[in-house]
Amino acid sequence: MAKVVVNVMPKTEILDPQGQAIVGALGRLGFDGISDVRQGKRFELEIDGDIDDAKLAEIAESLLANTVIEDWTVTREDRS
Amino acid sequence: MAKVVVNVMPKTEILDPQGQAIVGALGRLGFDGISDVRQGKRFELEIDGDIDDAKLAEIAESLLANTVIEDWTVTREDRS
Repeated sequence: MAKVVVNVMPKTEILDPQGQAIVGALGRLGFDGISDVRQGKRFELEIDGDIDDAKLAEIAESLLANTVIEDWTVTREDRS
Repeated sequence: MAKVVVNVMPKTEILDPQGQAIVGALGRLGFDGISDVRQGKRFELEIDGDIDDAKLAEIAESLLANTVIEDWTVTREDRS
């Protein structure tokens, strides 16, 4: 069993209203010094056996991210 | 400028219907071998200057996560 993490974030050129709302709320709550927040998604996949990088990329692009507005990264987390 | 990542995931004892929908879709699309998917959130915070761990924990608990149903982790990403 392996664990794979796929992070999906809005592209830098895309506005992120959820993140901006958090920046505003932080200021109102008195948390200073946070200049920007971006909100994205994190998917944790439990893999039985092996899966190759090409297949993981296909899953991320076809199902988990909207590649028009989002970037994705895949990370394998080794467990013993 | 430092970057801090806050990951917010549903607690293991909480059902995750979004993740289960992805597991179902993966099976229908022919991607085998993925036994479980959990969907959570990833926040990337840009920090001006320094912020201590206690303040980051307060931000995560009060604003970013619903601690009744979600767990959170904070990671500092060093940049040069």
